Amino acid sequence: MTRRKGWHDGDKRKKPMSDAINLAEKLASFDQKWSPRTVATFNGHDVMVVKVEGEFRWHSHPDTDDFFLVLQGEIEIRLRDRVVTLRAGEIFVVPKGVEHCPVARKEAHLLLIEPTGTSNTGDAATAAERNPI
Amino acid sequence: MTRRKGWHDGDKRKKPMSDAINLAEKLASFDQKWSPRTVATFNGHDVMVVKVEGEFRWHSHPDTDDFFLVLQGEIEIRLRDRVVTLRAGEIFVVPKGVEHCPVARKEAHLLLIEPTGTSNTGDAATAAERNPI
Repeated sequence: MTRRKGWHDGDKRKKPMSDAINLAEKLASFDQKWSPRTVATFNGHDVMVVKVEGEFRWHSHPDTDDFFLVLQGEIEIRLRDRVVTLRAGEIFVVPKGVEHCPVARKEAHLLLIEPTGTSNTGDAATAAERNPI
Repeated sequence: MTRRKGWHDGDKRKKPMSDAINLAEKLASFDQKWSPRTVATFNGHDVMVVKVEGEFRWHSHPDTDDFFLVLQGEIEIRLRDRVVTLRAGEIFVVPKGVEHCPVARKEAHLLLIEPTGTSNTGDAATAAERNPI
């Protein structure tokens, strides 16, 4: 089903307002791993879905907390002193400045929320592109 | 299962960092409707779960977009010019300043994200308390 963005008549700024956003449909539209896709924005943040599998890299975000919600599957968020296991329906927030390394033994699907413009690796040089879908 | 908050040794500010937060467990811990419970915070926002049933009230938030994710069930978000139906696994963002009225014909469970201190009715006098759980 194609859902087009519309303009809400009641909004004087004529900001485009989406229809309902189905996360599973968005996830079904791409296969690439570790490549977050922005599905909505709010309060200066990107709401993203991402497919992950394998080990990412150790990184931290100096200026932003990192929000994870597992939609399908299971991931580990490795911290320097412990490992947090996250299953579908569970969330975790990595506080800003805390080093972490996400790992998925099998493909997992996540919802991520970060300020628009944040690099997913904490480093613009190695960041994945932000692709709205 | 009880999960206690801990302190992450690597964080010099000693900000408490939670363990994984299971949304279904949090929702199972209360019955009250239209009473959001804060389960995590990030970047100055409260991440909340809420049980809803029936009709809320028309309101808007002048300074913040309003993020909805349906975890279970189905809701309508009535806007002045249309109705957006949201099912489990679907998200919607009501842009700031846009009047809306959430309605659930049957009990539904939602994840909400709003800046800490935001009133859920757009009006402090009628707002539900924010109860961390």
